[in-house]
Amino acid sequence: MKGKMIGEGTRPLICTPLVGKTKDIILLELVTVLEKEPDIIEWRVDFFTQIADTAAVIEVAKAIRNAAGSIPIIFTIRSIREGGQPISLSDREAIELNAAICKHTDVEYVDCELSNEPENIKYLREVARQNNTKIIASFHNFDYTPGKDILLQKFVDAQEYGLDVGKVAVMPKALDDVLTLLSVTLEARRKVKIPLISMSMGGYGAVTRMIGGVFGSSLTFAVGQNASAPGQVPIDDLRTVLHIVEKSMGR
Amino acid sequence: MKGKMIGEGTRPLICTPLVGKTKDIILLELVTVLEKEPDIIEWRVDFFTQIADTAAVIEVAKAIRNAAGSIPIIFTIRSIREGGQPISLSDREAIELNAAICKHTDVEYVDCELSNEPENIKYLREVARQNNTKIIASFHNFDYTPGKDILLQKFVDAQEYGLDVGKVAVMPKALDDVLTLLSVTLEARRKVKIPLISMSMGGYGAVTRMIGGVFGSSLTFAVGQNASAPGQVPIDDLRTVLHIVEKSMGR
Repeated sequence: MKGKMIGEGTRPLICTPLVGKTKDIILLELVTVLEKEPDIIEWRVDFFTQIADTAAVIEVAKAIRNAAGSIPIIFTIRSIREGGQPISLSDREAIELNAAICKHTDVEYVDCELSNEPENIKYLREVARQNNTKIIASFHNFDYTPGKDILLQKFVDAQEYGLDVGKVAVMPKALDDVLTLLSVTLEARRKVKIPLISMSMGGYGAVTRMIGGVFGSSLTFAVGQNASAPGQVPIDDLRTVLHIVEKSMGR
Repeated sequence: MKGKMIGEGTRPLICTPLVGKTKDIILLELVTVLEKEPDIIEWRVDFFTQIADTAAVIEVAKAIRNAAGSIPIIFTIRSIREGGQPISLSDREAIELNAAICKHTDVEYVDCELSNEPENIKYLREVARQNNTKIIASFHNFDYTPGKDILLQKFVDAQEYGLDVGKVAVMPKALDDVLTLLSVTLEARRKVKIPLISMSMGGYGAVTRMIGGVFGSSLTFAVGQNASAPGQVPIDDLRTVLHIVEKSMGR
């Protein structure tokens, strides 16, 4: 059985992150996470101490892909400027590592930040296409929530680059920002054709992880063992709420 | 022990409606509803076949007030123009019935639609004040969601009349209307001092019954035995979601 890909089904997929630092820890974390039955798993490679060793990264990616069975995997190097861990790789080296994953593993998705140089994004797009890997084009702001037009443009950019999924994750300073994020998601859902992922982070934004699916977000992050961003909800709680939301809407 | 009044506490109160047609049915419904431990109970008197018999209405109101122990009671005659049942009373007669409840029972709240004549609203306000009964000033639209300014003004009107709680319940035609309702609630929360109740109805609006509290609504309706409006969620489900929302916001 093949797991659901992003954009499939009526309920948003629940994604749990892996944030271990070593292969052993990551694979142990994976065992715990798999017991929670997420729909999709994101490996946050910027937490991995051997990130500069491409062969080691490929080995772990293959081990995760193998152990996860039918569950799709997202390979993500989050840059420090978008809220990730400090790493020794340059942007170009991170792109090359993503390209190696496309070429040498069966991982379903790689994450590519829209803040990358356009030529790097286009290069990764071509490698991904040749290897049947999908790209999540992402934008993060851990400090504040940019205006509606700026956020909407991120989803439009993702589509215009010819990438497969658009993702926007931003920090609210007030509850108004939470409504802005939901409103942008609703508008983007009408304007672009690719699947979308959106969330408002932190305590104020936590509700968007629960009801974002109603407004057009196809994936929501939950805590399996460890959180990878502020405001993530435990997977069992999130699944309970998603089920009640779905039922109450008469879907 | 005295139950929480509207506006007290950090989590919105859960209110379940009673919609029986006869005294016996209403009191049976009450037994079922009390098992679900709502925070507050609304008796929808427009469903009661003996509504034109003031003594009978007072008798049932006293019986409910007595059986409900510490749980506050809302006495509500919903007019047909705001989504209620057809009744034989004129607007003025409905106001007089509310006044009789203030005078002759210990019911905590009566509902007064803002669409009433101003002199009727002021008359009921004076009777309520003399008898220490609180008034929920309500506005409903079961067809669509009026614009933001109109909805905000309803909350302002409630406060300017000197009433105790403002309530707005409107039907969304699209998800944008759901965000409008939440946005108005947030703005009203900053603009007026009295406690507020707001909800977007139907399937699209169901999420507002779950997360409205985050944006400033102090009460949410849930199904104990029977729903009184479209989109109401079973009380156990609602309580589960409210708890997860509260926890995830770090409150």
